[in-house]
Amino acid sequence: MSGLLTAKPLTAAAFAPYGDVIEIAGAPDKMINQGMCGRHHDRAALDFGPDGRAGISLFDAKARHLPHKVDMVERHPEGSQAFVPVSGVPMLVVVADDNSGVPVNLQAFISQPGQSINLHQGTWHGVLAPLGAPGQYIVVDRIGTSPNLEEHWFKEPFTVVAD
Amino acid sequence: MSGLLTAKPLTAAAFAPYGDVIEIAGAPDKMINQGMCGRHHDRAALDFGPDGRAGISLFDAKARHLPHKVDMVERHPEGSQAFVPVSGVPMLVVVADDNSGVPVNLQAFISQPGQSINLHQGTWHGVLAPLGAPGQYIVVDRIGTSPNLEEHWFKEPFTVVAD
Repeated sequence: MSGLLTAKPLTAAAFAPYGDVIEIAGAPDKMINQGMCGRHHDRAALDFGPDGRAGISLFDAKARHLPHKVDMVERHPEGSQAFVPVSGVPMLVVVADDNSGVPVNLQAFISQPGQSINLHQGTWHGVLAPLGAPGQYIVVDRIGTSPNLEEHWFKEPFTVVAD
Repeated sequence: MSGLLTAKPLTAAAFAPYGDVIEIAGAPDKMINQGMCGRHHDRAALDFGPDGRAGISLFDAKARHLPHKVDMVERHPEGSQAFVPVSGVPMLVVVADDNSGVPVNLQAFISQPGQSINLHQGTWHGVLAPLGAPGQYIVVDRIGTSPNLEEHWFKEPFTVVAD
């Protein structure tokens, strides 16, 4: 299994099988601060496993570029993982379905300004890939001591190309 | 009690009594993704109360400007609250000590590029205040049904001015 993946603009609908796109979409759920702030409430399905807790970390990642080689995807069986861009750099997000422990049907998305993502627990995904420049991301994920990383290396890498 | 508050640049040391500044400071705790990404690990003291859970929301707030009037501060007795700027707009952060249920010793900080904050559980703070432009912030706070908001209105408002 190998081939080309075309990177599509990230949308909540297309990403729904893999996770949440956290962005302004429609009216806020609630106005707070005397009408000065709209709260778009509780927009991610978080999960920190039976023995974990929520944590906030900061990821500082080197730039990636298209065409981008995908030779490995990983998943976190014990928890969700959210990425919030704090330096304005879009993310190339590679995700896959699972078929009995094997990642299949890879897809590639490019995040748009204002979009954050939350990968659902156990979702196969590529490494954090700031596109075109180094990027910093706040990460909300599971803190714990038991193993929470599974990697799958492809015999034939995929190549992500621009749309 | 009233007066002027001078807004100082936000630093982790000055903010420590009130919460965490989540920023790149020093070497990463761990290199991941085959050396392409530094993880600054678990940088916030999160607390979601006895009956709450963690959630991710998006706040879309109107611009504030200096001089800025502070007629009220609030606190969340049941949980911490983190703010991550996703549109690059600095926050004016007003915090206070607690004296038997009354906020005292107000301080004002202005966040710097790359800084996110996490207000510790129960910390008195002003409303979310994007400085100079409307701002969007990812918020990690407690989701729950029991009351989690306490407000204190000042008889004489404070005014925050530039340093």
